[in-house]
Amino acid sequence: MAMDPLDAAMKACGADAFVHYAAGEDADMRYLTRFVMHDAFVFYKKRRLPGTIIVPQMEAERAGRESCAAVITRTQAGLPGIVKKEKDPWKATAQMIAGQTGKTLLVSPTLPAALLRALEEECRVVVDNGTTEKMRAIKTPDEIRLIRTVQKKTEKAMGLGISLIGNATTKKGILYHDGAPLTAEIVRSAMHKQLMDEGCRAVETIISCGEDSAFPHIIGSGPLVPHEPIVIDMFPKDEATGYYADMTRTVSKGKPDPQIAEMYEAVKEAQKIGIKTIRAGVSGADTHNAVVDYFKSRGFESDTRGFIHNLGHGVGLQVHEMPTVGPSGGPLEAGFVVTVEPGLYYPGLGGIRLEDMGAVTAKKFDDFTKFEETLVL
Amino acid sequence: MAMDPLDAAMKACGADAFVHYAAGEDADMRYLTRFVMHDAFVFYKKRRLPGTIIVPQMEAERAGRESCAAVITRTQAGLPGIVKKEKDPWKATAQMIAGQTGKTLLVSPTLPAALLRALEEECRVVVDNGTTEKMRAIKTPDEIRLIRTVQKKTEKAMGLGISLIGNATTKKGILYHDGAPLTAEIVRSAMHKQLMDEGCRAVETIISCGEDSAFPHIIGSGPLVPHEPIVIDMFPKDEATGYYADMTRTVSKGKPDPQIAEMYEAVKEAQKIGIKTIRAGVSGADTHNAVVDYFKSRGFESDTRGFIHNLGHGVGLQVHEMPTVGPSGGPLEAGFVVTVEPGLYYPGLGGIRLEDMGAVTAKKFDDFTKFEETLVL
Repeated sequence: MAMDPLDAAMKACGADAFVHYAAGEDADMRYLTRFVMHDAFVFYKKRRLPGTIIVPQMEAERAGRESCAAVITRTQAGLPGIVKKEKDPWKATAQMIAGQTGKTLLVSPTLPAALLRALEEECRVVVDNGTTEKMRAIKTPDEIRLIRTVQKKTEKAMGLGISLIGNATTKKGILYHDGAPLTAEIVRSAMHKQLMDEGCRAVETIISCGEDSAFPHIIGSGPLVPHEPIVIDMFPKDEATGYYADMTRTVSKGKPDPQIAEMYEAVKEAQKIGIKTIRAGVSGADTHNAVVDYFKSRGFESDTRGFIHNLGHGVGLQVHEMPTVGPSGGPLEAGFVVTVEPGLYYPGLGGIRLEDMGAVTAKKFDDFTKFEETLVL
Repeated sequence: MAMDPLDAAMKACGADAFVHYAAGEDADMRYLTRFVMHDAFVFYKKRRLPGTIIVPQMEAERAGRESCAAVITRTQAGLPGIVKKEKDPWKATAQMIAGQTGKTLLVSPTLPAALLRALEEECRVVVDNGTTEKMRAIKTPDEIRLIRTVQKKTEKAMGLGISLIGNATTKKGILYHDGAPLTAEIVRSAMHKQLMDEGCRAVETIISCGEDSAFPHIIGSGPLVPHEPIVIDMFPKDEATGYYADMTRTVSKGKPDPQIAEMYEAVKEAQKIGIKTIRAGVSGADTHNAVVDYFKSRGFESDTRGFIHNLGHGVGLQVHEMPTVGPSGGPLEAGFVVTVEPGLYYPGLGGIRLEDMGAVTAKKFDDFTKFEETLVL
């Protein structure tokens, strides 16, 4: 078995232990500990040993049940004695960490600056170059199963949102549902509530209609209208596991402008090309550029208009994480979970985006997303 | 007008500028910028000048509308030229920051360690001692208005949860609603959905029943039962403003054990005593100890059983923030928003907690919480 990447990073700089300090919402912390606590806590791992977390007494029992790390309490780590002499909380925490670990520490790049300075008074400290983030990028079969699960729940919510639009009626140029205007807010709220019932939290789901859809970061508000593109982009998090899904569909209630229909066909084909390009060893840059070239062949630019963002990104305990599937993207590796989300955006006309998520394997892109791609409802 | 605390901190160490780097969910960042962005971004403030944020081009327009800080893009801050020579993203960000600020920087205590190290190659760097956190503790009248608003929405959700319990029927020793067992999950979900309709996000609302209620950090699951204490503790965040509320009530469907009723009366009286003690100048420790003394006079300990946590804490852009209303708490100041939440916990029997939230003023505790305190439904 290959050496644990954290052990390798410690060995390279002669560190006795690796240290992280964050709240459990922090993706690295959740990955290392599988424990979520509102307040920040300490994780450390000595070479060739499993990790340990230091938590308050009140959380110790839950941590023992939920965390994959060993658990000791702050009292067991000597904090009560330390704080009698050291009133600065960062220095006290640093002394507690030093007492449990060693003379040379490798610390997380996101360790708080104040804790780094306090640790420097106790030990030699090397700041790590993102080893945990790199470990997170390659998913185990278990992680892939968890991500598929949240993707399935997301597709179900997408189905609900699209059916609300598909079943709407049109009156005075806007969509109606149950006798009231059908707004972006109503569709978003219905999808979010269904996701909540499935244990998922979605925020800022994009439901942007008409000219708004030409701006990928407008989340959309107000009544939806027929014959215009409606971009639905959602990225819920499964609260129990911490893993995200990410998907986008674009629909139109009734036929849209022929230019929109042409853009849709181009984006759908671009997505197929992106997906076909992906396998371990191909770079994120080459994948992105294959899509740029295709768009160019169809007369669509990739500049301030047209295809204006990266083709994709990693998804896991963060909705945006390594790797990059864009101009700066390096080789894709088996186990990466990435999105493939070409889009075309023309201010004054509208935007189209289609986004699937799946895993990179030795031979192909294993697409988790089964949801159909149909523009006109 | 008094000097801006960040200006004072800069002056004290001879810094040209203060720098923070975090995502917009970070409470300090939201306070300084009133801007929420998924990815991390740079805030800096030169002495005697307003703050500035550096954001990607795609976010500049929204930042201009939403942020209280001035906005420049990464391109305007020279990043494209820097990354041509510097491939390490932390070093590139540090060079961009140094180019906009000066020779000596005061940085946030939570600045990422990797960015601190990179900045140290460019400038003299002093790590700040929590100035922003201290500024956040004292709320302006506008902030108090925002916190009152989310507290009102929280009380409405509490009303819904308690009415579900109050209107339940009893069958075979458990509560029923609409023909099915009434569970902690059902009550939680109903409250969370109502809060969602009000633009608030609640997570991990505690609905713990019977023996579970003796452990303040068990969130509760499964069917609720009659004649047992049910602790409901919720702390929703208003998504639009970022401010939290925090409140707790304890109820019982049908009369509980007389010991529980006695504990309830003691906690209710302890809360009154805590509230009466609070005003600017009184310490958090004295307030806490007044409650400890009262419990002692009634025969309830404050050790591993009985009253086992702090009386309260600050609430604002974080649900737990400065000040401490507990044994280590210093003087309370006018403008602090704090909870007053005495509780009694006896494993094998159950727990009681009552929590209000309000503002410290020169003369009293201005309680935002109007919701009644009645044990038996």
